Amino acid sequence: MAEKPKKPQKLKARLPRGLADRGPAEIAATRAMVEKIREVFERYGFEPVETPAMEFTDALGKFLPDQDRPNEGVFSFQDDDEQWISLRYDLTAPLARYVAERYGTENLVLPYRSYRFGYVYRNEKPGPGRFRQFMQFDADTVGTATGGQSAAAADAEMCMMAADTMEALGIPRSCYLVKVNNRKVLDGVMESIGLGGEENAGRRLAVMRAIDKLDRLGVEGVKQLLGEGRKDESGDFTKGAGLGSKQIDLLLSLTAPSVQSVRHIEDGSGGANNLDTIKLLQTKFESETYQQGLDELQAIAELVERAGYGATSKNPDVRVLIDTSVVRGLEYYTGPVYEVELLLDTKDEKGRRVSFGSVGGGGRYDGLVSRFRGEVVPATGFSIGVSRLQAALTMLGKLDTKPDFGPVVVTVFDRDRVADYQKMVASLRNASIRAELYLGNPKNMGNQLKYADRRNSPCVIIQGSDEKARGEVQIKDLIEGARAAAAIASNQEWRETRPAQFSCREDQLVAKVREVLARHDVKWG
Amino acid sequence: MAEKPKKPQKLKARLPRGLADRGPAEIAATRAMVEKIREVFERYGFEPVETPAMEFTDALGKFLPDQDRPNEGVFSFQDDDEQWISLRYDLTAPLARYVAERYGTENLVLPYRSYRFGYVYRNEKPGPGRFRQFMQFDADTVGTATGGQSAAAADAEMCMMAADTMEALGIPRSCYLVKVNNRKVLDGVMESIGLGGEENAGRRLAVMRAIDKLDRLGVEGVKQLLGEGRKDESGDFTKGAGLGSKQIDLLLSLTAPSVQSVRHIEDGSGGANNLDTIKLLQTKFESETYQQGLDELQAIAELVERAGYGATSKNPDVRVLIDTSVVRGLEYYTGPVYEVELLLDTKDEKGRRVSFGSVGGGGRYDGLVSRFRGEVVPATGFSIGVSRLQAALTMLGKLDTKPDFGPVVVTVFDRDRVADYQKMVASLRNASIRAELYLGNPKNMGNQLKYADRRNSPCVIIQGSDEKARGEVQIKDLIEGARAAAAIASNQEWRETRPAQFSCREDQLVAKVREVLARHDVKWG
Repeated sequence: MAEKPKKPQKLKARLPRGLADRGPAEIAATRAMVEKIREVFERYGFEPVETPAMEFTDALGKFLPDQDRPNEGVFSFQDDDEQWISLRYDLTAPLARYVAERYGTENLVLPYRSYRFGYVYRNEKPGPGRFRQFMQFDADTVGTATGGQSAAAADAEMCMMAADTMEALGIPRSCYLVKVNNRKVLDGVMESIGLGGEENAGRRLAVMRAIDKLDRLGVEGVKQLLGEGRKDESGDFTKGAGLGSKQIDLLLSLTAPSVQSVRHIEDGSGGANNLDTIKLLQTKFESETYQQGLDELQAIAELVERAGYGATSKNPDVRVLIDTSVVRGLEYYTGPVYEVELLLDTKDEKGRRVSFGSVGGGGRYDGLVSRFRGEVVPATGFSIGVSRLQAALTMLGKLDTKPDFGPVVVTVFDRDRVADYQKMVASLRNASIRAELYLGNPKNMGNQLKYADRRNSPCVIIQGSDEKARGEVQIKDLIEGARAAAAIASNQEWRETRPAQFSCREDQLVAKVREVLARHDVKWG
Repeated sequence: MAEKPKKPQKLKARLPRGLADRGPAEIAATRAMVEKIREVFERYGFEPVETPAMEFTDALGKFLPDQDRPNEGVFSFQDDDEQWISLRYDLTAPLARYVAERYGTENLVLPYRSYRFGYVYRNEKPGPGRFRQFMQFDADTVGTATGGQSAAAADAEMCMMAADTMEALGIPRSCYLVKVNNRKVLDGVMESIGLGGEENAGRRLAVMRAIDKLDRLGVEGVKQLLGEGRKDESGDFTKGAGLGSKQIDLLLSLTAPSVQSVRHIEDGSGGANNLDTIKLLQTKFESETYQQGLDELQAIAELVERAGYGATSKNPDVRVLIDTSVVRGLEYYTGPVYEVELLLDTKDEKGRRVSFGSVGGGGRYDGLVSRFRGEVVPATGFSIGVSRLQAALTMLGKLDTKPDFGPVVVTVFDRDRVADYQKMVASLRNASIRAELYLGNPKNMGNQLKYADRRNSPCVIIQGSDEKARGEVQIKDLIEGARAAAAIASNQEWRETRPAQFSCREDQLVAKVREVLARHDVKWG
């Protein structure tokens, strides 16, 4: 039997999951954040650069965390010439392509310090607070000296800049932490417990990702992920790295001292000291990679300390903290990694500050440019999750969400005289005053006033035939009117007194509106 | 025989065609343009809104010009849930979805005036000046009254705003034109020459697209496209609309009077008059649609005239001009259409201003929201091609491309004292001065100074062991130095006099650098 033909479905107005529209308050908040971040990054000597939203798929590479199937996490398509193109999933991979394209030419001054911000796209299952389009703001330094203190200085500077940025965004000291680790430290430990060599690359990745979840899952959860595996609340099972309990204990002992430091800070007792942390770790494992990682951490810690951003007993408000539990999900990091954690004012039952989690991070990726060039190009960068941080600041009530005043609304009293009203609007606009003509159905003056109210207009202009005959216009001050209304008892009293409404000569319209705006401190021009 | 295995190709650092990276000067110019446009749009009472870069493919619809194959022109892909998603190809289709989703709810104040800017994406063959990612800045008014003067006022306002925007961007009056037409005028003519009805929809589209090319191909080229077809210089043949010569002449007679007006303006003789143009057209064709189109044009012309933006003999600097040759490529327009044309200072052999072409446009699209709702929702909008306009202004030398000063560079004289130098940098930054540590290989001071030069630094800081012992630093004023160098004859004289270089006490570093910056008017803080 033939199937019954389906009714044509009506086109539905909706967005795919994980995508969102943004209104005036959100847009204004993002603008303000971006301006503040830009100011800090420029003060650090970084200059802007912008790459397009899409690149050749192979040029971007695949470095996303939790990416088990090929192409997962990235939006990809073929263009007219059948070449594979992907939307950028971060701002670092495109920068590596940008630098590789110009490296060694007159078009790139080395070391190259640049910043950029924009939306990135992830083809992931969206969840609460997890979007498929979100904004990042990155800074990177490429082509520094190798070895010596210069490379460490580049990393240290990123951490200090991250701290300055948080404070510029209004997050007070002690309400954030810039945590620093080095991939080589963890790599060295893995070597020393028998996970070295090409053949263990997959297990090393699994270990890294398990430790990256320490904050979220706690020690017990991570132990399961390092061992046989873990079943989450929804019943989904994640295969573990298959390590023995001794290996697991050794791995987790690495993260103990710094966790300790963080605790000290979180409960306000101070006393974390980056150089002490490193001393504690110094003799724990025997591995050249491990030692190298610690040496690099020490160089960063010393620079940070000297510049006053470190954690010493003299400085309980630590800004930059050595923390060996920091991993960062992206695969391309080769040395130091950093993470910015937002701490909330609220404390948990043990008196520790509750963490909102990571709102930014970065690290050294000396191998990313070399994919194109076959030579190592030192590079280090830092990325702020603007969308995520904005969500956090909104939740914490730290963003100014007071709506601006809307435009002056010129009402249409007499529908045949639209041209006259339009001309009033033009005269206000020419005087740099935000103004508009009411463009809805003019039959009901009440609707026009309601519209002006909802637009948060400071005042409306009315001209009926009586006023026209007298060469006058009425100005209704809505701000004053709302105040007066609150003080007036009855509708009748309102109608009789008509507070905050007055007439003026037509040719005085601009001057009188200016007076109303000035009285209420509404900015114009 | 087995094929010889190919060598693995080295990853190539390049962008797909039609996409481009942008450096500091371009980014600064875009920022400045966007700010100026925003200011005008807000003065007109529009408020910001932002939609994501991607939408469901069906929600965006297919309205691009020159789109003969399905999906051509749009980047589309399937997400994890196998739903078809496309990158936005303009900012109007997403707005229609946004409005439809909220129409009739508390979340949308009607009439809804909004603006937005951002990149849009076209999967087209790129050419010179034709990109696959470019920026638009749109304003739209949705949900005005139907009929009466209010709808015309919404359209007239778009045209006046377009004119104000051009002037805010530094384009003087007489160097641009906002041209207005109405789709119904052309539709009416097509009806009257036997191209009405569903069965002629394809031919009507072909006619529209042919007339849209009048500027580019001239009358002869368009005649070919309206008739049998046209072979372009590359030998490619475009099939024509298949009209007879009488039909073609009637169609082209429509565009004659306004072409005449434009000519008058372009050769500076003035005298174009919108109401005269409409009078001329009034009796040309008998068709209800045609008359309705003319009536709507007349209402716009009158409003524009009253507000002083029109073309009269009293006002030779016409801003808004009725021009029946304007079509606009997008399919969704239902009434008035507008186009902003940039005119160059240069004149052709006939003394007429050379046209750069369209840098923006828009129109009424009463049917776009109704795709989702089944009721007509009046809407009109205007879009500025920011990227295209920026390219034009750059070409005309009308954008400020003078590079900003770079950061103060603290050099590394003694490589073991990076922490000391870093601390100097931190002290400058804490005083809101742009500063950075030289992070390249420090072995050669010449390279460090060359770097500072290329970064356009106002001054560099040097501290060798001698200065360190005396508790001093050297400040080298690069701006003054460059001036002095021009006046100095020999290298020896240079070495002996060392102009523009002086010492100060370490604790005076910030104060002295401030003096240097102030002397050269370098902004900081």
